[in-house]
Amino acid sequence: MNIQLTGTYTDSYQLAMGQAYFSNNLHHKPAVFDYFFRKIPFKGGYVIFAGLAELLKAIEDLRFSEEDLSYLAESGYDKNYLNYLRDFRFKGSLYGVSEGEIIFPTEPIIRVEGNMLEIQLIETLLLNILNFSSLIATKTARIRSVAPDRIISEFGLRRAQGLGGLFASRSAIIGGADSTSNVFAAKKYGLKSSGTMAHSFVQMFDDELEAFRSFAKANPENCILLVDTYDTLKSGVPNAIKVAKEMEKDGHRLYGIRLDSGDLSYFARKSRQQLDDAGLQYVKIAASNQLDEYVVRSLMQQKAPIDIFGVGTNLAIGKPDAALDGVYKLVMADGIPRIKVSENISKITLPEKKQVYRLLTKDQTFYGADAIAEINEDKPSKITAPFDAHKSMHIAKLNAEALLKPLMKNGKSIDLQENIEEIKQFSQKRLAQLPPEYKRFENPHVYKVGISSKIQKSRDELFFKYTGRKNQ
Amino acid sequence: MNIQLTGTYTDSYQLAMGQAYFSNNLHHKPAVFDYFFRKIPFKGGYVIFAGLAELLKAIEDLRFSEEDLSYLAESGYDKNYLNYLRDFRFKGSLYGVSEGEIIFPTEPIIRVEGNMLEIQLIETLLLNILNFSSLIATKTARIRSVAPDRIISEFGLRRAQGLGGLFASRSAIIGGADSTSNVFAAKKYGLKSSGTMAHSFVQMFDDELEAFRSFAKANPENCILLVDTYDTLKSGVPNAIKVAKEMEKDGHRLYGIRLDSGDLSYFARKSRQQLDDAGLQYVKIAASNQLDEYVVRSLMQQKAPIDIFGVGTNLAIGKPDAALDGVYKLVMADGIPRIKVSENISKITLPEKKQVYRLLTKDQTFYGADAIAEINEDKPSKITAPFDAHKSMHIAKLNAEALLKPLMKNGKSIDLQENIEEIKQFSQKRLAQLPPEYKRFENPHVYKVGISSKIQKSRDELFFKYTGRKNQ
Repeated sequence: MNIQLTGTYTDSYQLAMGQAYFSNNLHHKPAVFDYFFRKIPFKGGYVIFAGLAELLKAIEDLRFSEEDLSYLAESGYDKNYLNYLRDFRFKGSLYGVSEGEIIFPTEPIIRVEGNMLEIQLIETLLLNILNFSSLIATKTARIRSVAPDRIISEFGLRRAQGLGGLFASRSAIIGGADSTSNVFAAKKYGLKSSGTMAHSFVQMFDDELEAFRSFAKANPENCILLVDTYDTLKSGVPNAIKVAKEMEKDGHRLYGIRLDSGDLSYFARKSRQQLDDAGLQYVKIAASNQLDEYVVRSLMQQKAPIDIFGVGTNLAIGKPDAALDGVYKLVMADGIPRIKVSENISKITLPEKKQVYRLLTKDQTFYGADAIAEINEDKPSKITAPFDAHKSMHIAKLNAEALLKPLMKNGKSIDLQENIEEIKQFSQKRLAQLPPEYKRFENPHVYKVGISSKIQKSRDELFFKYTGRKNQ
Repeated sequence: MNIQLTGTYTDSYQLAMGQAYFSNNLHHKPAVFDYFFRKIPFKGGYVIFAGLAELLKAIEDLRFSEEDLSYLAESGYDKNYLNYLRDFRFKGSLYGVSEGEIIFPTEPIIRVEGNMLEIQLIETLLLNILNFSSLIATKTARIRSVAPDRIISEFGLRRAQGLGGLFASRSAIIGGADSTSNVFAAKKYGLKSSGTMAHSFVQMFDDELEAFRSFAKANPENCILLVDTYDTLKSGVPNAIKVAKEMEKDGHRLYGIRLDSGDLSYFARKSRQQLDDAGLQYVKIAASNQLDEYVVRSLMQQKAPIDIFGVGTNLAIGKPDAALDGVYKLVMADGIPRIKVSENISKITLPEKKQVYRLLTKDQTFYGADAIAEINEDKPSKITAPFDAHKSMHIAKLNAEALLKPLMKNGKSIDLQENIEEIKQFSQKRLAQLPPEYKRFENPHVYKVGISSKIQKSRDELFFKYTGRKNQ
């Protein structure tokens, strides 16, 4: 199967709107869109931003193939428009936060500047890559947070949403996993791949010991034996111990055993005891089976002697939310600030080109509030809750970092960080700056995001203009 | 972005087990695996099987690229094994149900026969494609079931799990959707693509009427105007009516309007009234915004005059389950039947090569029970519940269809049905044969799946052999 992502990797209406801009000769006019999200998944307190390097490369590579153009011609698109698309290259600019950054609802994560046509044509691609990647990085960070000193491996490809498994593995590493079972993703992104053995391997043989011996002989490095096919404590672990002793004679060491069923805490403890009694303190215990951040936390609280957590479905599909609600909204067109009006105030967008400031205490801890300002403002001295003008905060004395940096200029990426290990380290560093009350699973503290008076004024004026209603 | 699926699109342990079969000279020995699932998602009564044509093509095309082989060599794999993989082609055979068939837990959906190595190497690919595709086809069938005479369009690419959106669109059509917004999937699979317009288009213009006119001029066919950017009933619909009248003068017809916020039932009714009062009975009303089968059912019950449902996130990610738990289990190795033992009886697998019979009443309605028999048996006269030997059923007098048919022989697909429209029609035909009590959302009737006494005897003997415990 060969998938070449081209200009048609988009929603139909982007192409239809593109034709309307083109035929009305509006396609050269400038516009600005913001990418942001509204709701943190998993009832959590933060989101880890991921997918950026993949997005920037996809935008740089974006072309309409001849196959695309023939298909669109058959679908009734205008010839002149298709000729324009034949030479289409995205020539706009992107500003945004670094991959791995911690992000919060309402604030712009990426600002895209370009002409009306190009900026619309990348919308679906941008949302498709960033929403899912950030979802999975966030899910993984939650699992990592409760098992900081254990090995976490992503095992989800078999239940992943088709080819979505590819970004899932990449994003899992950014979020804090050590390795993935997905060899294709490991090769593509330079990730560490890891795996154990399946029950079917044990079943292929007439007895378990013979299966273990055959596997260890073929894979003496990183050999992990699955011990629960018949009876974990009476058969699996004793056989693994026999094989470990045989491996020692050949100068090898059994890397680990894996538990995939039953009470993982109980079996880990009993297995650890049997291994230790045999002098095999170095053999690690891996556990899998419907793990998520809550089960891992419980196992850690029980002090289950598990060294490696293999997390599959729940991580790779980001259960239970399975989607981040990121949107891409127009904030300027033809030099004029724009808003989307809605009966629901929290869905009214923030106009203008904006910068986001992260406020910090003197020891570089995140203060608990980000400030959204107009791009030409300095850091504001006061911010207001975007949907409740009665709530405000003075921030003049706080340190601040501007979060949105140039990512792409005129269609070309700038200093693209593609090293996943470095993105992950950056993310872990930023998580360390986030106070614990935002990281807890139960009713986490809400990180404040406020707007400057300039943004507030612009929005209120536009709201009045479009609705004829008085400022709220 | 170019994704060429190769042999490394698999879990790491498949390759490690492959090396163990190879180095122990077991790789030529025959084995048989079953693909089946355990739990119906969405608390529903059935699953629609999808993904088959994509799977068969992927298996036929499966190769290890030189890049794969270099990567695996660096990862420490054995040279002789890699040489074997260089010439690897899947030469096994598959038997299974037709794509679009209705399937139930525990019964084999696909039986794979091959050598130990090849049969293991396709596991992840098979699960990855079939689990997700069947999940989405099932979700869509549920939505279709409550709106049988409406247009349903899949709009989910922006929230899809990365490239998973591709199979999502294909599976949505199989499950009963009419069209997709995903142009790439539409082109690849010959689906109908459709779309409307975004709020950003309206916002790009100084006023809504001008935006509508520009769009209609550029897209006079299938023009759907989004009417809720500023005020649906005071601005959006009146402006759409103006544009519709102007289109009439040019010999065109406005295809529809779209509502994307607020109380969809209320706004649909009010908009319909305004359109009808203007003599525009032909203009359709499309609705979107967080739809799923429950919201669509509610709108239908309220007789909301909605002609087109645009269903996005909840469909494209199969919310809330987001995964089907399909597994791939060894049932024979080297000519000997095998089972996986588990403390949990419902996880003990069914050994032997098997056939599945769907029992039918005289009028071709599904009887409510499927029978699993050994491949050389005729349809059994009696079946037993697989996990409760006290429950049995006499089925001698019922008609039966054998569901598992040859799909691939020695690595080559047989009569591959790739026409999505025909797969969808087959699925709808089968759904019509399924009695309504299995289709309801609340506590659907449980479709029975029973095993023949031959399968039961084989499993019990194997259980005794592996555990030393008496037959249950």
